[in-house]
Amino acid sequence: MNVNGKHYRTIWMEGSSVFMIDQNALPFEFKIYKASTYLETCCAIKTMITRGAGAIGAAAGFAMAQAFQERTNNKKNPWRQGDTQKANCHEYATEQLSFFENARLKIEATRPTARNLFYATEKVFTAGLKSPGAAMAEAQKLANENIDEALKIGEFGNSLIKKGSRILTHCNAGWLGFVDYGSALAPLYVAKTEGKDFFVYADETRPRNQGARLTAWELQNEGIPHKIIPDNAGAYLMSRGMIDLVITGADRIAANGDTANKIGTFEKAIVAKEFGIPFYVAVPFSTIDFSLTDGWQIPIEERDEDEVLTYSGPDSEGVIRTIRMASPGSAAFNPAFDVTPACYITGFVTEKGIIEPNKISSFR
Amino acid sequence: MNVNGKHYRTIWMEGSSVFMIDQNALPFEFKIYKASTYLETCCAIKTMITRGAGAIGAAAGFAMAQAFQERTNNKKNPWRQGDTQKANCHEYATEQLSFFENARLKIEATRPTARNLFYATEKVFTAGLKSPGAAMAEAQKLANENIDEALKIGEFGNSLIKKGSRILTHCNAGWLGFVDYGSALAPLYVAKTEGKDFFVYADETRPRNQGARLTAWELQNEGIPHKIIPDNAGAYLMSRGMIDLVITGADRIAANGDTANKIGTFEKAIVAKEFGIPFYVAVPFSTIDFSLTDGWQIPIEERDEDEVLTYSGPDSEGVIRTIRMASPGSAAFNPAFDVTPACYITGFVTEKGIIEPNKISSFR
Repeated sequence: MNVNGKHYRTIWMEGSSVFMIDQNALPFEFKIYKASTYLETCCAIKTMITRGAGAIGAAAGFAMAQAFQERTNNKKNPWRQGDTQKANCHEYATEQLSFFENARLKIEATRPTARNLFYATEKVFTAGLKSPGAAMAEAQKLANENIDEALKIGEFGNSLIKKGSRILTHCNAGWLGFVDYGSALAPLYVAKTEGKDFFVYADETRPRNQGARLTAWELQNEGIPHKIIPDNAGAYLMSRGMIDLVITGADRIAANGDTANKIGTFEKAIVAKEFGIPFYVAVPFSTIDFSLTDGWQIPIEERDEDEVLTYSGPDSEGVIRTIRMASPGSAAFNPAFDVTPACYITGFVTEKGIIEPNKISSFR
Repeated sequence: MNVNGKHYRTIWMEGSSVFMIDQNALPFEFKIYKASTYLETCCAIKTMITRGAGAIGAAAGFAMAQAFQERTNNKKNPWRQGDTQKANCHEYATEQLSFFENARLKIEATRPTARNLFYATEKVFTAGLKSPGAAMAEAQKLANENIDEALKIGEFGNSLIKKGSRILTHCNAGWLGFVDYGSALAPLYVAKTEGKDFFVYADETRPRNQGARLTAWELQNEGIPHKIIPDNAGAYLMSRGMIDLVITGADRIAANGDTANKIGTFEKAIVAKEFGIPFYVAVPFSTIDFSLTDGWQIPIEERDEDEVLTYSGPDSEGVIRTIRMASPGSAAFNPAFDVTPACYITGFVTEKGIIEPNKISSFR
């Protein structure tokens, strides 16, 4: 999408470096972070410089490609040294495979809940065993597919948005959460280009406020009318007939349709069902983990309590300060995701169309 | 309760001044705010220097008593000047009544949702028409009753707390929210003195974080094991069997049991019902507004959007800073309360015992 008149992807790879919009600096500063090694890319995923299901998937694919490149470009590599005898020996090959496997494990350990991450590492790892170039090509292909899927999700999801719709979204599954366009927000962008009038309520999405920081910033950039609400206000708005549609993204979906997404999603789904408000989850198929029969098998990442207890943002002079949000001496519990059982979900908006939860398994 | 070894009420009146623990400074600084005039007390209620159903009620009673005192102590008052002729004339009496009525309206406009506020102004206004001394006596009586009721609520509510109970609470209905002891937290303090083991999860309670700031601080003071959670984590904890009981306070209850309380309470009640977890509301009877047949008639206060968009707290050097929480340029919607219909409430813990919602009206 466009920022200050220039088109950006959220994340991309050039040469051996991965570039990404620094989402920890947004919305207060727009800057690009450069990760020169696969370990730097791992760190960027873990610290959420890049985040969101699709963007994490692309980052993981790029990191895996970087690992293959780094090994090949290493000066000690016997292939580079022209030492074909050493390069072909069993011990070297074993050691090299172990390096790639270890890199894959490191990448996969960054954000354990995100399915797209594992999807990408598997694809790029398999390609990389042929050649480092194949790994790079596969990672770029995955990033491009991510965009194509987002566009299709946008087209299908657009049908859900009526004139005057009041839409609630949680966290950020916009173009910052993907390589471009987004999943939950992609339908809104399509609806906007068609000139539909609608209004968005963005949950601030504690503790990291991706809604207040990123979704609000995206919607502002795209000129879509919106307001930020405290997560607590969901039932209030729904009970007063102020929400027509809820749409979120997802980080991993089990074969039965149970859906892991940002903490708080499950509450919104329960409350939406209570008021008969349709609740949609917008995702590419790469988010579905057919190896899991239900949501109880999805690992839930627990993040540092300081994300709840402190917060960083600019003071009135624009200086970024970190302040204490909570009583000093009290601890916090910070699960990053929850799992919404399929029965609370009206449908999945995917690149293959809008699919009912009980039909997901037939696409295995 | 005790702070640094000394006993404090949350709010009290001495002479013509109202003293209160400054709840905007807590938990980072413990200091006492002095309101010398009824308008200063109004301002303290509005800006939440004092807050919480019971404390607001006491503050409103004291403010009303201050208004009667101020009028009487005014040097222009013909009674003070010994001008009995002027003092007894119809015009003066009418003008004086208008002053009291105007003061009452100003006090009642500070926090429109809080029932205890209106309960207190009515009682003290009626007493004050007899004499300023009677107003003061009535305001002190109400504050003392608030403590007696809290103690009884604590005794009755204690029966709900079992060994090993994991209790969720929202916002702060502890001793800071009352003159002493609290409503939702009073049972915990009684259970603690009986040596029961239990654990409390305190919702941080955005946007003003009364849970993270005040409830956590109270629990710490009282040595009760607890953790702060983002409001978003409620359904996660309940779905994983980590909550046995939810207990909150309330700001106003209609005759049918519909309950206005801090924004987000309704979400917790819906989610608790979904998981079959008992949901109790702890209140003195003065919170019940028998003039309202249902919750739709309860006025909901909408507060400034800056409460959502910015936050103040100490940086690492202890300097209080106000920082931006959200994307600059985006607006927020900030309803301060929501209304939980009676059907989601297991029972009311009151000074007269634990009462089912459908029995409330019989106490009219």
